[in-house]
Amino acid sequence: MTFTAQILTLYPEMFPGPLGISLAGRALSEGKWACDPIQIRDFATDRHKSVDDTPAGGGAGMVLRADVLARAVDHARAARPGLPVLAMTPRGAPITQARVRDLAAGPGVTILCGRFEGFDERLFEARAIEQVSMSDIVLSGGEIGAFMLLDACIRLLPGVMGAASSGDEESFESGLLEYPHYTRPAEWEGRTIPEVLRSGDHAKIAAWRKQRAEDDTRLRRPDLWERYRSVRD
Amino acid sequence: MTFTAQILTLYPEMFPGPLGISLAGRALSEGKWACDPIQIRDFATDRHKSVDDTPAGGGAGMVLRADVLARAVDHARAARPGLPVLAMTPRGAPITQARVRDLAAGPGVTILCGRFEGFDERLFEARAIEQVSMSDIVLSGGEIGAFMLLDACIRLLPGVMGAASSGDEESFESGLLEYPHYTRPAEWEGRTIPEVLRSGDHAKIAAWRKQRAEDDTRLRRPDLWERYRSVRD
Repeated sequence: MTFTAQILTLYPEMFPGPLGISLAGRALSEGKWACDPIQIRDFATDRHKSVDDTPAGGGAGMVLRADVLARAVDHARAARPGLPVLAMTPRGAPITQARVRDLAAGPGVTILCGRFEGFDERLFEARAIEQVSMSDIVLSGGEIGAFMLLDACIRLLPGVMGAASSGDEESFESGLLEYPHYTRPAEWEGRTIPEVLRSGDHAKIAAWRKQRAEDDTRLRRPDLWERYRSVRD
Repeated sequence: MTFTAQILTLYPEMFPGPLGISLAGRALSEGKWACDPIQIRDFATDRHKSVDDTPAGGGAGMVLRADVLARAVDHARAARPGLPVLAMTPRGAPITQARVRDLAAGPGVTILCGRFEGFDERLFEARAIEQVSMSDIVLSGGEIGAFMLLDACIRLLPGVMGAASSGDEESFESGLLEYPHYTRPAEWEGRTIPEVLRSGDHAKIAAWRKQRAEDDTRLRRPDLWERYRSVRD
């Protein structure tokens, strides 16, 4: 079964965009995933095709209308009933690698991309939509978050990375950052590759990598380290 | 002065991509920012134009060579000496809206996009490069992180959003999530806009929004709430 991405957006011409190139692009042309952008404006009903209006209570910018967006979501859900519906919004739950793995193991995802000041909140009261945030920074719209989420899912689809790079040791998979990497040349600008990595002793190499992953996580990401310790202990 | 994005990548054809459309695209065509992707492979010296090699100590995938990448970084730094150099890597510090504001107030940014298993660690020992992570999920490369960082910067450049939407009340700017939005229709599927927002009483509206921002942050993002409280108290 092909992993299907339905993207509700005011800029369908952005897709597949960067996901049409490289790893995700090859997977797309091989039919390992399908990209179906849907224009939200097609669900407007007035003759101006309005999708937004001014914020109730005043303030800058425009707010996406609940009625128009709900029609778009209802259409997407009817078209592909099996797909979870996620909205890209800074008010959402932070995305996790565990959620990415779940999504990648399923039939696909419908992604609702916000613009302007965001969505009328009643949309989320009236429809079952998972609100997700990709990063603690403010973007001009949800489309770039959609690229990020889809890229993270697509690389995990069967046959995309190949069995050798299943990614179990990568950052966030174990709750730790990944250990540092080294490659040839053996010496560069007077700097050498750590001795242990050239020892051929697989047990020692594995122990060194584990230690570095723990040390670097503790130092660089105390938040991840605390979570890792509380789960482990 | 034009904000300049120099992007070191194996896929220069991805740029400007989605940043050539909508808000960022308009700003690009108006000369408010400039996009200069640079092919990392041009800095390889062997006849195969190799940029990567197998990991020292064994393991899946390929590692980006320190010597080739350092040449690319040195070139970018010589071409535009004023730009901070950031590498997209899951081992980096999580990006913040404060860092985005800093970058947007400066002359631009040089972004180094990783691929495969990542960079030879000696690159970061030998060159002053800020390691940044955009999200706690694993991507196929740094390019999508670069889109995200640039989009966040570009919307803050003078004249891009317009003065009315300076974004001071948006999520993460104050350390809180943004309050929920509402717009017309006043009633939809039996759901109404909160009474206070239709009162015309600006002080009451501001107080309600502040309270909702605090409540929603405490409920949805206890991590942000703890940080906000510790700074405020």
